[in-house]
Amino acid sequence: MYVILVYDIGEKRVGKMLKHCRKYLNWIQNSVFEGEITEVKLKELLAGSRKIMNEETDSIIIFKSRDEKWLDKEVVGVERMTTDNFL
Amino acid sequence: MYVILVYDIGEKRVGKMLKHCRKYLNWIQNSVFEGEITEVKLKELLAGSRKIMNEETDSIIIFKSRDEKWLDKEVVGVERMTTDNFL
Repeated sequence: MYVILVYDIGEKRVGKMLKHCRKYLNWIQNSVFEGEITEVKLKELLAGSRKIMNEETDSIIIFKSRDEKWLDKEVVGVERMTTDNFL
Repeated sequence: MYVILVYDIGEKRVGKMLKHCRKYLNWIQNSVFEGEITEVKLKELLAGSRKIMNEETDSIIIFKSRDEKWLDKEVVGVERMTTDNFL
């Protein structure tokens, strides 16, 4: 399935969370990731995220679509993170 | 149509952008909005956003789906902005 993940994480934990999410998805904006992922891998991603985040103050939202074709994407301004692999 | 809007905006402009986006969509996380919107209203939203943002440094990503039912949403941690209208 295709997912969009956005997080709002305390500054102290954000570096670790970024590194964790990038193992599974493409980083497209400051706190936004997207990509194809299996149910199993998504569970793994979220289990790992729960260990990093403070569930009382931090938040992660995942939008899931069975197919990427049901979503159009439009970018206004800089396309900062389109090539994720140069970092 | 149903849209998810995420922005990455310089601190000086973020308050103005938040206020602008909330006229059109529901605020669900720090820099994330969602909701039903018409093509015309989305154009209006983006035209207004372009006036606020610095297109060389800031970015807005819009994911569009013809129907909300094609997207599942899962939240981990705090659901901060679910009731947008109390502010």
